[in-house]
Amino acid sequence: MTVRIGLIGVGVMGADHARTIYTAAGGAELTAIHDPDRERAESVAKSCGGARVVDTAERLIADPGVDAVLIASPDATHAPLALACIEAAKPALVEKPLAATLEECRAVIAAEMTAKRRLIQVGFMRRFDPGYLAMKQALAENRLGAPLFFHCQHRNAVGPDYLTSELVIANSTVHEIDIARFLLDEDFAFVSVTSPRASRRAPGRQPQFLVMETKSGVVVDVEAYMDSAYGYEVKGEMVCEAGAITLSPNPPIKLREAGQEVFAVEPDWRDRFRSAYRDQIAGWVASIREGRPVGSSAWDGYAASFTAAACIEAWRSRTRTKVTLADTPDFYK
Amino acid sequence: MTVRIGLIGVGVMGADHARTIYTAAGGAELTAIHDPDRERAESVAKSCGGARVVDTAERLIADPGVDAVLIASPDATHAPLALACIEAAKPALVEKPLAATLEECRAVIAAEMTAKRRLIQVGFMRRFDPGYLAMKQALAENRLGAPLFFHCQHRNAVGPDYLTSELVIANSTVHEIDIARFLLDEDFAFVSVTSPRASRRAPGRQPQFLVMETKSGVVVDVEAYMDSAYGYEVKGEMVCEAGAITLSPNPPIKLREAGQEVFAVEPDWRDRFRSAYRDQIAGWVASIREGRPVGSSAWDGYAASFTAAACIEAWRSRTRTKVTLADTPDFYK
Amino acid sequence: MTVRIGLIGVGVMGADHARTIYTAAGGAELTAIHDPDRERAESVAKSCGGARVVDTAERLIADPGVDAVLIASPDATHAPLALACIEAAKPALVEKPLAATLEECRAVIAAEMTAKRRLIQVGFMRRFDPGYLAMKQALAENRLGAPLFFHCQHRNAVGPDYLTSELVIANSTVHEIDIARFLLDEDFAFVSVTSPRASRRAPGRQPQFLVMETKSGVVVDVEAYMDSAYGYEVKGEMVCEAGAITLSPNPPIKLREAGQEVFAVEPDWRDRFRSAYRDQIAGWVASIREGRPVGSSAWDGYAASFTAAACIEAWRSRTRTKVTLADTPDFYK
Amino acid sequence: MTVRIGLIGVGVMGADHARTIYTAAGGAELTAIHDPDRERAESVAKSCGGARVVDTAERLIADPGVDAVLIASPDATHAPLALACIEAAKPALVEKPLAATLEECRAVIAAEMTAKRRLIQVGFMRRFDPGYLAMKQALAENRLGAPLFFHCQHRNAVGPDYLTSELVIANSTVHEIDIARFLLDEDFAFVSVTSPRASRRAPGRQPQFLVMETKSGVVVDVEAYMDSAYGYEVKGEMVCEAGAITLSPNPPIKLREAGQEVFAVEPDWRDRFRSAYRDQIAGWVASIREGRPVGSSAWDGYAASFTAAACIEAWRSRTRTKVTLADTPDFYK
Repeated sequence: MTVRIGLIGVGVMGADHARTIYTAAGGAELTAIHDPDRERAESVAKSCGGARVVDTAERLIADPGVDAVLIASPDATHAPLALACIEAAKPALVEKPLAATLEECRAVIAAEMTAKRRLIQVGFMRRFDPGYLAMKQALAENRLGAPLFFHCQHRNAVGPDYLTSELVIANSTVHEIDIARFLLDEDFAFVSVTSPRASRRAPGRQPQFLVMETKSGVVVDVEAYMDSAYGYEVKGEMVCEAGAITLSPNPPIKLREAGQEVFAVEPDWRDRFRSAYRDQIAGWVASIREGRPVGSSAWDGYAASFTAAACIEAWRSRTRTKVTLADTPDFYK
Repeated sequence: MTVRIGLIGVGVMGADHARTIYTAAGGAELTAIHDPDRERAESVAKSCGGARVVDTAERLIADPGVDAVLIASPDATHAPLALACIEAAKPALVEKPLAATLEECRAVIAAEMTAKRRLIQVGFMRRFDPGYLAMKQALAENRLGAPLFFHCQHRNAVGPDYLTSELVIANSTVHEIDIARFLLDEDFAFVSVTSPRASRRAPGRQPQFLVMETKSGVVVDVEAYMDSAYGYEVKGEMVCEAGAITLSPNPPIKLREAGQEVFAVEPDWRDRFRSAYRDQIAGWVASIREGRPVGSSAWDGYAASFTAAACIEAWRSRTRTKVTLADTPDFYK
Repeated sequence: MTVRIGLIGVGVMGADHARTIYTAAGGAELTAIHDPDRERAESVAKSCGGARVVDTAERLIADPGVDAVLIASPDATHAPLALACIEAAKPALVEKPLAATLEECRAVIAAEMTAKRRLIQVGFMRRFDPGYLAMKQALAENRLGAPLFFHCQHRNAVGPDYLTSELVIANSTVHEIDIARFLLDEDFAFVSVTSPRASRRAPGRQPQFLVMETKSGVVVDVEAYMDSAYGYEVKGEMVCEAGAITLSPNPPIKLREAGQEVFAVEPDWRDRFRSAYRDQIAGWVASIREGRPVGSSAWDGYAASFTAAACIEAWRSRTRTKVTLADTPDFYK
Repeated sequence: MTVRIGLIGVGVMGADHARTIYTAAGGAELTAIHDPDRERAESVAKSCGGARVVDTAERLIADPGVDAVLIASPDATHAPLALACIEAAKPALVEKPLAATLEECRAVIAAEMTAKRRLIQVGFMRRFDPGYLAMKQALAENRLGAPLFFHCQHRNAVGPDYLTSELVIANSTVHEIDIARFLLDEDFAFVSVTSPRASRRAPGRQPQFLVMETKSGVVVDVEAYMDSAYGYEVKGEMVCEAGAITLSPNPPIKLREAGQEVFAVEPDWRDRFRSAYRDQIAGWVASIREGRPVGSSAWDGYAASFTAAACIEAWRSRTRTKVTLADTPDFYK
């Protein structure tokens, strides 16, 4: 069985996803594309084996030739389109965030629970990264004892103009929140946020430093700096009772040149997480073929947004703040 | 267009290839399988989406539902099956070596040239490894000047019982010969071979040390040690006039534990070159869709075997030996 | 001129210092030793070229054959002995901490200022570590812009039995407080402390996580975990506006063995900071010869203890706490 | 007892040695200096605590205030001065090479044997490098089995004008010959040399590639490239039956900047081997105090030069060449 995929949105990420489906996803076919910019949709379709271009997102979802939907359109459209997919009983991979508001997140969860079927996967691609997977595997083997600290750094080369101090938390650290929940298998109890001064290269926003405490007492700290200038970098170290596990994503070559030994740092997340994006789609396709969900659920998407909101509140109040997220429903366990 | 692939041979490598086609090759479908061990063929077919099992290799090649053939059967069958594919005008990816003898290599080349179409790709997967590709890219950018040395190490954990000192050269260093020709874009003029003592763990064969000189004067040295015990490892450093490029295939995590910082070393080539194998098949499928050859040609397969034969002669005589390979025909440029 | 050094205290650190003076300190001579355990003093004296053993610390300080004093006796004796050295107008290198209480620190500072001469160097050896010095040098070159974050990890293999959650801060993180003040050249304004759960290997104390904000807005975070089991490790990363500087203290060899690539991790601080300890003594001797102070001053010793006390207060209250340290007197600038 | 050292020659290396004795050698004193350039001698003496400047090398050696002599004058003077030191019964540390000719080497050896006392240490400083020492230690522990290969690279940034293809072997690879003899504890049986083309930056000389076989069958290969442009680098990997040991001399920090992760490469041997040079002098001083020789003996100096001469012969003839070095006399074992 070949899974016929419809793609909504062919911006930078959407076009990348199209290419990934075309070249690297066994058992899948890019069959339909929708984008408000029809010309761009045509161009992507042509370069990826000739998918049909569809006029509206609704028609694409309803199309009987479409088995599953990849939603890579702007954030505000995620929840309505996800709801439409649930309505149509079609599996959907939704780019993060699941929704623009917590209320919309809850609506998607309610719809899924009503439908009694898990159809939504949220695009937290790090869950498919070989480094985090090896870290999870090492934790599962339990050679090093229980986790105590998880140190994270998340740096972008250049933040977009609209980025504010709040959005540094809301847009970026959700990735760390999701991956920490994935690795540690538990939720957060308290969060605190401290900000260093702004970089002179981006005076309008502050880098952020989150300290989050899980319910069992692991301290997760996250540096989020969106204007590092030197490149995109994601680091992580899990410190356990008797040892530590560190992400080590060295590029495939090093150069010696002009007094230096040099490794390239990736310019953005698409290069850094290329294999994670590819394996995310491969995993999604396999999960459809085999009927068992993988990756981040709608609940995971909600939990990440909920926790990020608590961090913003902690940042505003400069106070250690309780996270009042409900327990994960059995449906999502 | 989906490329329908027939697979001949589902031993360790063949079964791996089946899985790769099923999960990670966009635009391809595993449609038919042949193996003398029919039970094994059925089992692989079942786990990979249900390809048809075909009785003979000849029938598989002739099957109108098969667009392209992947030959992963024993070495001695490579040339006859490649010739049958050329006869049937079907593209074939042939596991290395191209043939069991130089004469058979020449027969495949002659058949292809007669057919006036390049149909054969030889499975030197390293040409698709991100490390070697980045090395080639760095050479192409020419920031570091012309190459002078290429240092290679090739280590297996445990050699098979049948392995002899000659086979260490013939079976293993062909990979280095092929990748050196790929990176440097030229052939070898002279070769010398020196052997250290045998490891006490494998007294019946010697490790080998090759020193090969290209026509333009690059020195390529290769350590081949098939009984390293600690794991599989392939290293390479290209030393240029003004700098050096080194393969740096660090695994995705490191552990600190019991007084040590530890990286895992892969147990064999399938783990080390997983992405190379995947990209080799993806590249082959794309080359069929787009009608332009990629990877090692039949001539490259011949050149590697020819050069390895010269190395064996050099080893026997302990003398610097001239390599009398003919120039690459225009057909293969 | 050879500096004749008297050593008070030949416990583990003192005996190490004796050996360093004997083998690696140009222009210095170990001339006198005092320790309550006279037998131990004799034994160390014998192994280090035959220094005189002196009955009391007071006599050693008064001895006209002693030009300078190294104080490596128990913490409670540091301040009285430092005061005696100031009284005798002899330079003293005092192992950290400068004193057992803040009040005693202030007494030493007052005595020095009265004497109008800087005689006390506190043994924060990290200021002589090649890594931190290279970090300071890179900051001074200002290629990377102003600092924003300084991430620190400080791990011991096995904490002593008497260690409490407070002492994790008071004894260990003072090193990070001192080196951060040295690198950033400023004091702290606010501190917060969060604790993960205790390791089951040391249930009586919690690891600690400090977040300290400098007056200009740099965030310095410190993980202090005294029961890591795997070894002693000190890491540091300074994140600046346009780049980052990371300590990289790899040992001189790596091994490949049994499926792993392995670096040794030092068992304790003496191995990790061997060259820092040596260069600290060499720097101290040179500073005596040349009459200009180096390393941590009495004020630096006081500032580190003062800030650590604020962290303990922050830890008890779980509140972001203001650090009310006075400005550095001109005398110490 | 303080060892009073006389230094002959204060060129680049000699001045460095003076500084090392002054700042980092416990139990030693730089007491006398001779150099034909008296002004330079005065200046070095002044900056290193005020040693006496002596008119001739002969007078310095004869001076009753000089206990031991460090010979850092031009190569041609090494043997005569070493002979004078033996005559005066004073220990001498002689910069490599021991002598300008093999005949002179033999004369020094004969003099020492006649004197019945080992007085000469040859300045092969690598024997004091932490990396090689850790490698020797790992071999001694024998966890990895017997050695099979020793891969060496030796690169300088810019070769001097007078350097020829022969001198690349004679001047540089002697270091690898000496350290291989030290690590493996045996002599060479056969040597071969292959040259790549010259770098366009130094067309008058070729880089060299040596393949040397020890008597027990270890293959030692050495790349010697004196015009690497990017910096000075010495690498080494010992491949044993069941694992490998690699030198790993990473500098103390790494930088992330402008799309790169960067380690500095040292510009020359003095930075790369700073601690080796320091420990060589410390070891020499200790050996004088304790009366037991350390480091490379006169015989080791002879053996290195002898083997290098065989390599030059092999290079000229392009033939695998037998090394006819006599067995090490018992006196030197």
